[in-house]
Amino acid sequence: MRHTRILDLLNSTKTLQEVNVKGWVRTFRNNQFIALNDGSTIHNIQCVVDFENTADETLKRITTGAAVSVTGALVESQGAGQKYEVQVVKLEILGDSDAEKFPIQPKNKPSLDFLRENAHLRVRTNMFGAIMRVRSVLSYAVHSYFQEKGFVYVNTPIITGSDAEGAGEMFKVTALPFDNTPRTEDGNVNYKEDFFGKETNLTVSGQLEGETFAMALGQIYTFGPTFRAENSNTSRHLAEFWMIEPEVAFNDLTDNMDLAEDFIQYVIKYTIDKCPDDLKFLESRLLDEEKSKPQAERSEMALLEKLNFVLENNFKRVSYTEAIDILRDCPPNKKKKFNYIINEWGADLQSEHERYLVEKHFKCPVILFDYPANIKAFYMRLNEDGKTVRAMDILFPGIGEIVGGSQREERFDVLVEKMKALGIDEEELWWYLDTRRFGSAVHSGFGLGFERLVLFVTGMTNIRDVIPFPRTPMNAEF
Amino acid sequence: MRHTRILDLLNSTKTLQEVNVKGWVRTFRNNQFIALNDGSTIHNIQCVVDFENTADETLKRITTGAAVSVTGALVESQGAGQKYEVQVVKLEILGDSDAEKFPIQPKNKPSLDFLRENAHLRVRTNMFGAIMRVRSVLSYAVHSYFQEKGFVYVNTPIITGSDAEGAGEMFKVTALPFDNTPRTEDGNVNYKEDFFGKETNLTVSGQLEGETFAMALGQIYTFGPTFRAENSNTSRHLAEFWMIEPEVAFNDLTDNMDLAEDFIQYVIKYTIDKCPDDLKFLESRLLDEEKSKPQAERSEMALLEKLNFVLENNFKRVSYTEAIDILRDCPPNKKKKFNYIINEWGADLQSEHERYLVEKHFKCPVILFDYPANIKAFYMRLNEDGKTVRAMDILFPGIGEIVGGSQREERFDVLVEKMKALGIDEEELWWYLDTRRFGSAVHSGFGLGFERLVLFVTGMTNIRDVIPFPRTPMNAEF
Repeated sequence: MRHTRILDLLNSTKTLQEVNVKGWVRTFRNNQFIALNDGSTIHNIQCVVDFENTADETLKRITTGAAVSVTGALVESQGAGQKYEVQVVKLEILGDSDAEKFPIQPKNKPSLDFLRENAHLRVRTNMFGAIMRVRSVLSYAVHSYFQEKGFVYVNTPIITGSDAEGAGEMFKVTALPFDNTPRTEDGNVNYKEDFFGKETNLTVSGQLEGETFAMALGQIYTFGPTFRAENSNTSRHLAEFWMIEPEVAFNDLTDNMDLAEDFIQYVIKYTIDKCPDDLKFLESRLLDEEKSKPQAERSEMALLEKLNFVLENNFKRVSYTEAIDILRDCPPNKKKKFNYIINEWGADLQSEHERYLVEKHFKCPVILFDYPANIKAFYMRLNEDGKTVRAMDILFPGIGEIVGGSQREERFDVLVEKMKALGIDEEELWWYLDTRRFGSAVHSGFGLGFERLVLFVTGMTNIRDVIPFPRTPMNAEF
Repeated sequence: MRHTRILDLLNSTKTLQEVNVKGWVRTFRNNQFIALNDGSTIHNIQCVVDFENTADETLKRITTGAAVSVTGALVESQGAGQKYEVQVVKLEILGDSDAEKFPIQPKNKPSLDFLRENAHLRVRTNMFGAIMRVRSVLSYAVHSYFQEKGFVYVNTPIITGSDAEGAGEMFKVTALPFDNTPRTEDGNVNYKEDFFGKETNLTVSGQLEGETFAMALGQIYTFGPTFRAENSNTSRHLAEFWMIEPEVAFNDLTDNMDLAEDFIQYVIKYTIDKCPDDLKFLESRLLDEEKSKPQAERSEMALLEKLNFVLENNFKRVSYTEAIDILRDCPPNKKKKFNYIINEWGADLQSEHERYLVEKHFKCPVILFDYPANIKAFYMRLNEDGKTVRAMDILFPGIGEIVGGSQREERFDVLVEKMKALGIDEEELWWYLDTRRFGSAVHSGFGLGFERLVLFVTGMTNIRDVIPFPRTPMNAEF
């Protein structure tokens, strides 16, 4: 008979005479009670083995991590905490798991570091099962939001011949050998002999290509991997991460803020609705973790409270200029507690400043906008004041920057002048400039780092724990 | 006032006193009729300009490609072919488009080659607007299918330290310089000094990592970019393409075939339902294209007929051995019309053979299974006969192979022996082997090349026309 998923058995409306379940043993107690999990839910189903009529040889093989197939009746459970259990009639060991060797032993309480080194097995724990299910549902919420609104999903290129954006250090992509590398007459690497006939890199953003599609299809979004070859060994940075980049023709910066806020609230609400059990588990995990911290460092809100807070409160919209005024006069600045003291308008904000604004001053998500032109990218629209651009960053408690976006400079002449001033090659970006040459219009977009969103929703604190196989400096195992 | 999408105006249930539309001019006839498109639909809205009361200076700027904002009444159209039109009260040119310079002039009938070189603008044509909307809806159908069934979406790594799979030539990813490359004492490149401390490549498949997640979460799928550094300049190959790879614990090869067939039928049906107008346009485009072909080379079915045929007919399941018997005795083999004559069991099938089976013999999608072990990958499950493996390929008319999959070898000893025979490093794949060390079980999966699916559904014939910015040998523009 075909096996039934544990999720479906636990949601059954009635007992059943015969069912088959397949999964992995989480624990085996008293030579009798198997807690079996198949990944369909955080909950295990209890399978009660008739140990008196089961061969010792078989009982010994029911170890943590073993794959088993169990056939029997789905009956109401005598024990607390579960509605149903399976009374085992037939048990088959599908794959053994040597208890001495299986690295993921619940009783050992493996550290997050150890689990990262075993990223292929950590997903067999409750914690990572929950994280990865939540991540998956969040992904789908992203697609659902945009598709329901008629946005077109665009797969912008991963390998890019354009390195002009300056969003960060790039990885080189090449098929050339390091030995006997083809050279031009003057001794440079001859990229004409490389696979693409030119120098290519891994994309840092699909925005520029996305803009060209928005200027044809109206509303588009990307959702794909992006890369940074930056030696940032922090709990918030990955060398390979997934980014969501909507771009909308005819949207100005206010429309852009409205879109970002509505989008974030939608995907969080969607996930709360779809993943109540996983989020409940992650909430209690976070509470446990925080018990080891000093009172002052603990979150003021539990996980679900924090998520609901984001749904129920508008994001505070604050201009960069207002933010500088607040920061200049705030106690940590006056007492020189910040590493970077804010003295003047024009300073680039560091994460300590962002955290102060979000966590101490406003105590809610904040949208900062209208930044000084010279600390932002070339494609952002210059305001009438001639010194600020229509940029926006969304800052989240505990996460920092989760969104960066802007209204784009739609005026050909202004854009070209800016590129010249920054030494950006117009020839290289001929196709980008075409969007301003032919039928240009106001348009806006933003980028949201997906893993930062997953961090926020799961209450995890290290970004390496919310992506299946993290890539960071000196680490590309698997 | 806020502008309304053209799709919503054309679907309006009533006339409206005042509306605002923004979009790009497709054509401007008789100094009076603007065909305006905003990418929300293939249909243009006709905007009727009161030319007697509009400045000549403005009328001259209403050119193909220009972005305009139009305000006026939505009224019933006098002309044929449209329900509503806009009687323009106010017209604003948002962005000019110099008619002498704008490359996409409908009257010039630009070639597909020319449009590929202008991938950033081709999406402003009806054809590419339709293709990209259909592609987007197909993507969403993929996610919907798996999410509704409780599959977990897994983002397997793009940069991979594992090069053992042998699915194809890989691109190197590096942050090392070609000049003064760090070397070890014996003169080799010292990858310990590279960003990840080891040699890394762009992934050719997320399958192996996907398997580790399936063996924890039960049912997973990937949908992400994959890469081949192969010098294949054909209409069916890309260096960068998107792949869908579901993997399911406890599924055998029959379950795998059932899943693939059900999945393909679902996403095609979903797209037929959601994109009737775009598909109708693409169907007539294909008919036009085929008019220039000799009768014998034309499709027997129109596009929608072909899509419905796939929905209404089961895929024919044929073992490799049966296929060889058919091919050996078929007229083109006997008359030596094939480039590769089929003489013996064990021959690898070429696309000419696959096309014969699908297009001439069975005239429907075909699933070939149980291939000779030595022409398939190391991880496929060996049959009891000791010479075939539980592989399957799905072949589509006009496309060839669209799916490749298998039941995986779940037996540790058999897998290790196979790897040894092929010289695949066990150390390198320690984590993959762990899935067989700890709680192994029968499991299966497949990979579907997304662009080949888009080709099939849109009726396009060159794969470069169904991805926004194609990457092929000597081509990574944009």
